[in-house]
Amino acid sequence: MDYAQFDRVRAVAPGTHFLELLDQRLLPGQILQLRLTTASQVVDAIASLQVRGAPAIGIAGAYGAWLAALEFAEHSDWRTQVRAALLRLRNARPTAVNLAWAVDQQLALLDGAVDAASLVNAFKAKADQIRADDLAANHLMGRLGAELIAQGSSVLTHCNTGSLATAGFGTALGVVRAAFAEGRIKETYAAETRPWLQGARLTAWELLQDAIPARLVADGAGALLFSSGRAHWLIVGADRIARNGDTANKIGTLAHACAAKQFGAKVMVVAPFSTVDMDCKDGASIHIEERSEDELLSYGGVRTVAEGVRAFNPVFDVTPAHLIDAIVTERGVVQGDFSRGLKLLGSTA
Amino acid sequence: MDYAQFDRVRAVAPGTHFLELLDQRLLPGQILQLRLTTASQVVDAIASLQVRGAPAIGIAGAYGAWLAALEFAEHSDWRTQVRAALLRLRNARPTAVNLAWAVDQQLALLDGAVDAASLVNAFKAKADQIRADDLAANHLMGRLGAELIAQGSSVLTHCNTGSLATAGFGTALGVVRAAFAEGRIKETYAAETRPWLQGARLTAWELLQDAIPARLVADGAGALLFSSGRAHWLIVGADRIARNGDTANKIGTLAHACAAKQFGAKVMVVAPFSTVDMDCKDGASIHIEERSEDELLSYGGVRTVAEGVRAFNPVFDVTPAHLIDAIVTERGVVQGDFSRGLKLLGSTA
Repeated sequence: MDYAQFDRVRAVAPGTHFLELLDQRLLPGQILQLRLTTASQVVDAIASLQVRGAPAIGIAGAYGAWLAALEFAEHSDWRTQVRAALLRLRNARPTAVNLAWAVDQQLALLDGAVDAASLVNAFKAKADQIRADDLAANHLMGRLGAELIAQGSSVLTHCNTGSLATAGFGTALGVVRAAFAEGRIKETYAAETRPWLQGARLTAWELLQDAIPARLVADGAGALLFSSGRAHWLIVGADRIARNGDTANKIGTLAHACAAKQFGAKVMVVAPFSTVDMDCKDGASIHIEERSEDELLSYGGVRTVAEGVRAFNPVFDVTPAHLIDAIVTERGVVQGDFSRGLKLLGSTA
Repeated sequence: MDYAQFDRVRAVAPGTHFLELLDQRLLPGQILQLRLTTASQVVDAIASLQVRGAPAIGIAGAYGAWLAALEFAEHSDWRTQVRAALLRLRNARPTAVNLAWAVDQQLALLDGAVDAASLVNAFKAKADQIRADDLAANHLMGRLGAELIAQGSSVLTHCNTGSLATAGFGTALGVVRAAFAEGRIKETYAAETRPWLQGARLTAWELLQDAIPARLVADGAGALLFSSGRAHWLIVGADRIARNGDTANKIGTLAHACAAKQFGAKVMVVAPFSTVDMDCKDGASIHIEERSEDELLSYGGVRTVAEGVRAFNPVFDVTPAHLIDAIVTERGVVQGDFSRGLKLLGSTA
């Protein structure tokens, strides 16, 4: 299957001597392609969430290293300057695992570099490779996930796991794209995903670009989709998967999964194998980050809540493995005994 | 137990020759007491959602009849004028059962009225009675519901079922108030309730007025409250209860109920017995109203979604009886066999 038709949206794309970023803070109201020429611009773009989504951030970081090499190639202390720039990139968002992983690969190349000119080429080649690998993994996961979906199904997805969050195509949204291309999907529902509205702002927009039939729903309407037989699958990404299959993902995922299970719909988690944390025993050991209460006190910039009201704003929830039917990675699909299956995939590196 | 401490917020309250309404469209940003002197002002207030919540609308309608009698008492054709005003009131929101029920009681008094002066008094007395009965029923339901809640519990509620939706105290929120007064509740969580945000705008505000410790959460965070043991009860109102206990309520209720059941928390439905529709066999026969897609596409005039995106916007969902632990009415509490229990309560009219 050729997925070129789904290549319209690119979160991060290299130019001749610059990096293009689609400013995700402005979507969908404004489509602005940023043209970055220095590593410190990349740092700012990552820190200010102009680029978001773990794989997309990692790719931006890898190209940020390339921009640093270009910038400092003529300096006599290029090695020192580039190293400092890479460390700033690495810390642009401290909790983003993919960012550290990508920049660390460039740091290793820096250590072995003989001159600045060859470093520029090595950084560019490595960044291109990270980007290409991510896209290929997404295509593969899309194909594997789509095989599980019966003809004529409708699906619910949550948050944004598409081209905007990755090198392209997406993880969970990649499965939606692949299944749609194969004629398996009748309708896709995108949940708004409060408080940041990634579903409303980003996923609905991406699906529109690809002319995939889709409807936006309130987060609270997910359960009705399953109880009324309107949706047959919940398809979501993952921020972290414990070795027993318990999956941390954007807040709201767990509610959809409970409802899906209650009414006999199925739950698919789609994520690169790097998301599986074999050092993490189960969901109970995953720390749930809380963010500022302010995010719940206004909506689209309009204050909706009285002064003095408190909020509780967890970013993730953990869906226990027994509510999940399939975990799809680029190394293969696990169904049933997740502990055994994930361990097996881990040994096929 | 004296509940006077919870009497700060009044959605509808009669004055000497006027009716006071708290404009709910402006809350919580602005607290505006409307002073209405004619029935047609009441019609406008109901139609424009300045007053909302089925019991509150019914009470407003009953006092609207009183204002009509005051207005037309000196007219020679007072009977004709008042009847026409009452029919306009009755149709201000065609689907509001409580409104028709309240206005019909005034229409019956009109038929028996001998002169306009006595009609004014009769309408006022009837409206006062409807309001007092509603408040008394809420106090009673509060007491009955609170008995089910163990000391030190925390609860999640959805939408607005408080003083703003009723004569005062509220239904589900009345149980929260009563249980709080008895020292049973540690923390109350209010779900935002997209798309109208009644939880964020109204419930959080009401709880703040009463100094009941509360936190606002995204609708999607309800499940985490139950999975993490932060909440032990889901307490909600009802728009319609089938004779088998299946309960239609504001969209988002079902998702919370599925999660509560999954993690061993309990589900309480609180509603006056008039909400039980003995002609309705089960949830499958309850029609789910859909509202305009626009409600999901923007907020407060700020467009959040790309042009061309479609939405699916159901207003209610149906929670099956087997997910519900208790239905609390002013006639008593039903647990277990809802078909039998509701039938029994129905025969105690």
